[in-house]
Amino acid sequence: MSNVDQKAVNTIRVLAADVVAKANSGHPGAPMGMAPAAHVLWSRFMKFSSANPKWINRDRFVLSNGHACVLQYIMLHLCGYKVSMDDLKAFRQIDSITPGHPELGVTDGIEVTTGPLGQGIANAVGLAIAQAHMGAVFNKDGFNLIDNYTYCFLGDGCLQEGVASEASSLAGHLKLANLVAIYDDNKITIDGDTAVSFTEDVEMRYKSYGWNVLHIEKGDDDFEAIANAITEAKKSTDKPTIINMKTTIGFGSLKQGGHDVHGAPLKKDDIEQLKKKFGFNPSESFVVPQETTDHYKELAAKGDKLEQEWNTLFKSYQEKYPKEASELTRRIEGRLPEGWEKALPTYTTSDAAVGSRKLSESTLNALAEVLPELIGGSADLTGSNLTRYKGATDFQHPSTGLGNYSGRYFRFGVREHGMTAICNGLAAYGGLIPFGATFLNFVSYAAGAVRLSALSHLRVLQVATHDSIGLGEDGPTHQPVETAAWLRALPNLAFWRPADGNETSASYLVSIMSQHTPSVLAFSRQNLPQLAGSSIEKAARGGYVLEDAQDADVTLVSTGSEVPLCVEAVAKLKEQGVKARVVSLPCFEVFNAQDKDYRMSVLPSGHPILSVEAYSTFGWGQYSHDHFGLQSWGSSGPYDQVYAKFDLTPEGIAKRASKVVSFYKKRGHPVYSPLISALDDISDE
Amino acid sequence: MSNVDQKAVNTIRVLAADVVAKANSGHPGAPMGMAPAAHVLWSRFMKFSSANPKWINRDRFVLSNGHACVLQYIMLHLCGYKVSMDDLKAFRQIDSITPGHPELGVTDGIEVTTGPLGQGIANAVGLAIAQAHMGAVFNKDGFNLIDNYTYCFLGDGCLQEGVASEASSLAGHLKLANLVAIYDDNKITIDGDTAVSFTEDVEMRYKSYGWNVLHIEKGDDDFEAIANAITEAKKSTDKPTIINMKTTIGFGSLKQGGHDVHGAPLKKDDIEQLKKKFGFNPSESFVVPQETTDHYKELAAKGDKLEQEWNTLFKSYQEKYPKEASELTRRIEGRLPEGWEKALPTYTTSDAAVGSRKLSESTLNALAEVLPELIGGSADLTGSNLTRYKGATDFQHPSTGLGNYSGRYFRFGVREHGMTAICNGLAAYGGLIPFGATFLNFVSYAAGAVRLSALSHLRVLQVATHDSIGLGEDGPTHQPVETAAWLRALPNLAFWRPADGNETSASYLVSIMSQHTPSVLAFSRQNLPQLAGSSIEKAARGGYVLEDAQDADVTLVSTGSEVPLCVEAVAKLKEQGVKARVVSLPCFEVFNAQDKDYRMSVLPSGHPILSVEAYSTFGWGQYSHDHFGLQSWGSSGPYDQVYAKFDLTPEGIAKRASKVVSFYKKRGHPVYSPLISALDDISDE
Repeated sequence: MSNVDQKAVNTIRVLAADVVAKANSGHPGAPMGMAPAAHVLWSRFMKFSSANPKWINRDRFVLSNGHACVLQYIMLHLCGYKVSMDDLKAFRQIDSITPGHPELGVTDGIEVTTGPLGQGIANAVGLAIAQAHMGAVFNKDGFNLIDNYTYCFLGDGCLQEGVASEASSLAGHLKLANLVAIYDDNKITIDGDTAVSFTEDVEMRYKSYGWNVLHIEKGDDDFEAIANAITEAKKSTDKPTIINMKTTIGFGSLKQGGHDVHGAPLKKDDIEQLKKKFGFNPSESFVVPQETTDHYKELAAKGDKLEQEWNTLFKSYQEKYPKEASELTRRIEGRLPEGWEKALPTYTTSDAAVGSRKLSESTLNALAEVLPELIGGSADLTGSNLTRYKGATDFQHPSTGLGNYSGRYFRFGVREHGMTAICNGLAAYGGLIPFGATFLNFVSYAAGAVRLSALSHLRVLQVATHDSIGLGEDGPTHQPVETAAWLRALPNLAFWRPADGNETSASYLVSIMSQHTPSVLAFSRQNLPQLAGSSIEKAARGGYVLEDAQDADVTLVSTGSEVPLCVEAVAKLKEQGVKARVVSLPCFEVFNAQDKDYRMSVLPSGHPILSVEAYSTFGWGQYSHDHFGLQSWGSSGPYDQVYAKFDLTPEGIAKRASKVVSFYKKRGHPVYSPLISALDDISDE
Repeated sequence: MSNVDQKAVNTIRVLAADVVAKANSGHPGAPMGMAPAAHVLWSRFMKFSSANPKWINRDRFVLSNGHACVLQYIMLHLCGYKVSMDDLKAFRQIDSITPGHPELGVTDGIEVTTGPLGQGIANAVGLAIAQAHMGAVFNKDGFNLIDNYTYCFLGDGCLQEGVASEASSLAGHLKLANLVAIYDDNKITIDGDTAVSFTEDVEMRYKSYGWNVLHIEKGDDDFEAIANAITEAKKSTDKPTIINMKTTIGFGSLKQGGHDVHGAPLKKDDIEQLKKKFGFNPSESFVVPQETTDHYKELAAKGDKLEQEWNTLFKSYQEKYPKEASELTRRIEGRLPEGWEKALPTYTTSDAAVGSRKLSESTLNALAEVLPELIGGSADLTGSNLTRYKGATDFQHPSTGLGNYSGRYFRFGVREHGMTAICNGLAAYGGLIPFGATFLNFVSYAAGAVRLSALSHLRVLQVATHDSIGLGEDGPTHQPVETAAWLRALPNLAFWRPADGNETSASYLVSIMSQHTPSVLAFSRQNLPQLAGSSIEKAARGGYVLEDAQDADVTLVSTGSEVPLCVEAVAKLKEQGVKARVVSLPCFEVFNAQDKDYRMSVLPSGHPILSVEAYSTFGWGQYSHDHFGLQSWGSSGPYDQVYAKFDLTPEGIAKRASKVVSFYKKRGHPVYSPLISALDDISDE
């Protein structure tokens, strides 16, 4: 351990205390405890270019214990990323690039959004899979273009979360040797000593997952031990590594080793003694000694050079493998292949009625051929989700004989939360468009990761089949009622519920083109007819008039499997002399983004609008005057009987539409579109 | 292995095939594979009384792999529960008591709702905790009133789910020796061989959690080995047990051992050969041989006798410990103590402004004294959730020195999903009112279990603090925006967001009195004033007029921390000559259950209504004409600045209210309450 190292580590610790104190909010404990690991990792191992934080072959660093982000911001600052001392001083302030937890897209060098515990390690598994896959696809003899590592720091909290268990078990199964996790074993959580709730044998647990398990006894000051462990980890050829590193939380503070130092600023006198102890002037703040600055400057220069060398390597690769090189470039840049969308199937009314999960399968079959970046799988529901496209190879370690790393289909196991968090990592890596699949009802299991797809602006697709009571016999435990409302309330997430083949194609079209928005695509188990009046173009606007009527008395607005029921209801209403329109609204998020004139043309004033959907009616008030849906849970039985039980039939719909029409006629006032808001121009401000 | 045993097992297998075939839907594989374990467990170990399925000291049986419920229904039928052969024939049919997955409350003898994988084993941990606690509280020397076991069957799918990991780790920590899990190690999941995704060492993993691990090599036919393992498990004194039992999925079918037999009926010829092989007449269905009937009848009689013996024991207990006996009776019957609600704090405007999480703490302090059945804890956020009431003892194994089993406070660890599923088990046991706690944002992590609280009609409380952007610096990763919409869309769940102390008391009052409904109670981090016009009685109706105005121009309807902002906005509007009312709507679910006259008096026709809430506005259309809330994610910064960023200030509210007022005045038509629906009498039908 050199003097430079010790000074650098002390600098990080003192700076962490300063940053949190200035913000008067934050978590000094873990940054002070993990400062040695961060310093050693960045100084001796991390391959990065702060001049080009997006360099594809950089090592990925994930701070799964995201509350320790002061540490990460400090490392980025020291290593030359666009994080200035002023940015550190603006920690946890409005619109700063140093928010309370790391957010992808906000700060250069932040690879994934962390803070919600357990997500980071699962993202790291995704990042590691992405490297393994991209390497398998693009590397050639003598051209290890893609060979980066993924390093992940995590704490007790992450290890307690189920999402971490799911992802870690899969990482072991997949033998991801490129993944190195460093566990900050500081024996402290918010509730106090881990003895109160967390007494499992973590090392044994990770061994059971098939990981390589190492340890560092003195994580506070044994820099060589840290370096040796990481070196050892990198030698692994067929196992991910977890390094159990014992540290003292808040090392240097008067309160070190206790939970008081976890989530609150150190007191003034504590910071003073800390600075004195570490050889800093207690009356100065935000100080980086020159030799520490120099050390990291040198490091940054080394990193830039690494990238330049890679660029040179890539140039030769380009000469030798021009096709592969241009493909890699295209994928890194996130450009879709010219004309890919022509592969999307189109349908006419003469095409067979099939479950929209089958339509999704056809679409995936078509897209897998033209989009090599499309990569995904199912949480052990492949035969039900119908997601394994024709000719797929499984992503598996070659030694298993079940696939290889260039395979693009995942067997995620019954691990929905892990799956989605892994997909977030895959998307964050770059060059990939990941999808996961399960029943719509079980997307809820992944709620923690779904909201981070949206917050992180990651293009992650979720194929969510068996999307309603239409799944029938499995019953209410499996029938989503509330799920659509939740997904529709999430900012920056597109929840699609296509009604037929053309709408299915549209849902994939828009999801894939939306580079910064995740999508959940809900598909039916039961058969749905191909509708007259649907088209990819129309559905791609999120909502459109499927069936118009002059001087309409009522509009029926609906989604997915209830749209054809509405079409039938219109015929019944016609017999009664009621003129009805049908609007299909497969995606609220996309429809809301259309211009107002268009939206008003779809849901105009002049007559009442009735929504029809086999879900909770919660949230339909924005589009319809009256709402027909479920007021309760579903029911176990053959699907048509379940629909009949809830009166969700053409007759039941027509009956309600008639009531709505007469109610509003009787009221006798003009009827306004629910799209009209008094606050429109305020939200535009 | 006797002939009777073998015949009984064969009967179960054949019956399982028949039931699934008749329904033409369902899962024969696991029931056929686990028939021996079920038979041995029920025949030799299970303490039950089918005459009184609610006997408090019965052993609890949980089928975590709930898709195998045919097995459970058959066992209930054979053992004399109210599940007839006709009920078996109505498997998976509308309104039958044999739905596609087991549902608590639908079928006698079903202890918890399972099917969503991983939930059952976590519920079982809750049931085991409940026994340990109730036993510790009520047992006396010579009176082991409460000493039942919890048995749980589970499959590969359950073990892959994070919720199972969380709960199992905690079960090991808590040393729950009364829990025996039998893992159906059949090497098959829906995606095929477990080799494709699940290659971890399950036994080592459970050892790492601190479990006792046993195995059965020949689960298909070695009945003695099964019995020996369970006997061995019951000898454990300080560890839960998992028995790894190797079985053949679909044992007896032509397709045994493969995934084809998992989730689809056997073909006709397969059932025929099965029956022949097992000595049944292939042309008959739904047959139970007389000696099998006799065997189970005898068993049922033995069970009834056990209950009678217990009743005798309880009688002597009553004589010796009359107070404890009447308390136990009260709790089993679910009666609350006389006058408990008088303990609820009330407030006036002169009381200090504090965060509603503090108000929740005061309420918990008061209630813990009068409600000994109130039991709960936090997912490692005790100091933030403020849930550890005064004088609490931790629920811990006494050997730890950290508490004991009569303790009522849980250190759940950072395990939100496990926590909620455990609370479901605690509530299902009887005699307990459990609560869990975390930040509102992380209730989403527990979504899978939350929906089952609601579907299962379990009174589970969730204390969800830091309920909005008002948490400030932690930022958007921790600020719920969509969570309220999701919870409000869930049938049979009460999402409360109290605005002050009286409303906080009301939220606890109603939550505790709602014996069949779970509640999520959202509390603020930031300080809130005590409001003029609030009261427990008013708030207990879910919504009420906080501030009225004659000939009002506008009503502001709001919840929680935005209510006081609305009150301030009213004063500003008054200066502009605009007369505004304020409605506080702390709970949609409870408000919706009020009579229409009352609801219309709160949100009447005649003037426009503007909602104000620091969440997505999704779903407000049912109460308000215009909606002011968040259109995006939150932001990291001091909370008042975050509110200001989104214009959620008295000024911002007043500005919008003015706009709404002039908009509707300009329109010049009568304004109708959004509560009025053309379909009212249809939903009442």
